[in-house]
Amino acid sequence: MDVDKYFSSRATVRRFSDRKIDPELLSTLLEEAAHAPNTGNMQLYSVVVTRSEEGKRALAPLHFNQPAATGCDTMLTFCIDINRFRLWCAANDADAGFNNLQMLMAGAIDASLFAQQFNTLAELHGLGCCYLGTTAYNAPQIAEALKLPSGVVPLIAIATGYPEGEASASPRLPLEAIVHSETYNQFTPEAIARIYGPAEKSEDNLKFIAENGKQNLAQVFAEVRYPRATNEAFSTTLQDFLDKNFYN
Amino acid sequence: MDVDKYFSSRATVRRFSDRKIDPELLSTLLEEAAHAPNTGNMQLYSVVVTRSEEGKRALAPLHFNQPAATGCDTMLTFCIDINRFRLWCAANDADAGFNNLQMLMAGAIDASLFAQQFNTLAELHGLGCCYLGTTAYNAPQIAEALKLPSGVVPLIAIATGYPEGEASASPRLPLEAIVHSETYNQFTPEAIARIYGPAEKSEDNLKFIAENGKQNLAQVFAEVRYPRATNEAFSTTLQDFLDKNFYN
Repeated sequence: MDVDKYFSSRATVRRFSDRKIDPELLSTLLEEAAHAPNTGNMQLYSVVVTRSEEGKRALAPLHFNQPAATGCDTMLTFCIDINRFRLWCAANDADAGFNNLQMLMAGAIDASLFAQQFNTLAELHGLGCCYLGTTAYNAPQIAEALKLPSGVVPLIAIATGYPEGEASASPRLPLEAIVHSETYNQFTPEAIARIYGPAEKSEDNLKFIAENGKQNLAQVFAEVRYPRATNEAFSTTLQDFLDKNFYN
Repeated sequence: MDVDKYFSSRATVRRFSDRKIDPELLSTLLEEAAHAPNTGNMQLYSVVVTRSEEGKRALAPLHFNQPAATGCDTMLTFCIDINRFRLWCAANDADAGFNNLQMLMAGAIDASLFAQQFNTLAELHGLGCCYLGTTAYNAPQIAEALKLPSGVVPLIAIATGYPEGEASASPRLPLEAIVHSETYNQFTPEAIARIYGPAEKSEDNLKFIAENGKQNLAQVFAEVRYPRATNEAFSTTLQDFLDKNFYN
């Protein structure tokens, strides 16, 4: 297979067929994905695999009933996990000082790399995947639904299954927007206009702007899709969850 | 190529030959990696590419002069980035409320997925990679060296180049340690002993325990490699950096 072609044409899949994923394939993909790099070979993550109808029904509203959440074959919730490490330390008279910001970030990186390695492997095996960015929004309720113990933080969910229909790749920002040589090259107003120009002028986005009664695409992103008040409310919820279940 | 074989046998490379990476290859890999999934197609990340000798010399001590940092061809510092989005919003009379915990985590996920996609692509093209978990430890100094503006947080570094010699894959925990079906299956003492047993009994680790004057492997991890006082000191540094450069 042409690996480069896969990487530059991959697309998020939000609609799935009724075809079930073979449990053995799922295990193999998770086993291979666990060879992703991680912090000090501690694997500060875990994944909860939801395949039952009741389990998926309980999670769907916590992901705002997105079609990918309601229609997937399997939901995978990737978590930051210091619980397992702490139990190991407790059994070995070792003092585990992992309930702090650095280890939260280490766990977030570990969980993300593992999730992305799974995503790549799943897509290479013909499955479709959709990341649900809503996972950390409803961390307390997801933790309750999945019976996560203290030290385990739900961070990322991937809805997966066999694709229904075609999915098309979203365009990305040009390299100049994301790659800096030697030092960060702060953007001029001209650079910002150039970088975001193509997205601002795309037909879909012009429609999107009009539908939302906004003047431009930046306002749609900042004020409709990810408004300050919502971001701040969910941040308070997450901070409170971390204080009680991670930093404690 | 046998993709599954690559995924289950990949290994971190810490020693590099003198062979230079073709700049065009590097650009292609970054461009393809940017097709990784990300939050709402906002790509809340950026990468600073350090290839100059001076640049690498400035960064190496901030990564505690690990051999991968001192001997790599290229150092890539992957950052959480809300700066570019904020400049876009400012130019468009849009209120960007992204300086909060949820968007920090969204940026951390985005930067991690992008970094991991780069890692996979680089390895598939014959390069070796080493993640440097030290990036967030010295965030303030790395930000200064790379001239990162407010809103940009260095999170992950990958040292890369062509491998020198053979690298061997590290064993991973068994699936039972990281995969939970339907709900989190809290570990019994027997499960903890079974999961960590093989690592505890490996010859390398037995030597490691003896060299460090510890009783067991958990103590080496928790008290020598990642001790509480160090984790907490670096957490304070990172929190202070975030307060001044991200949450402000």
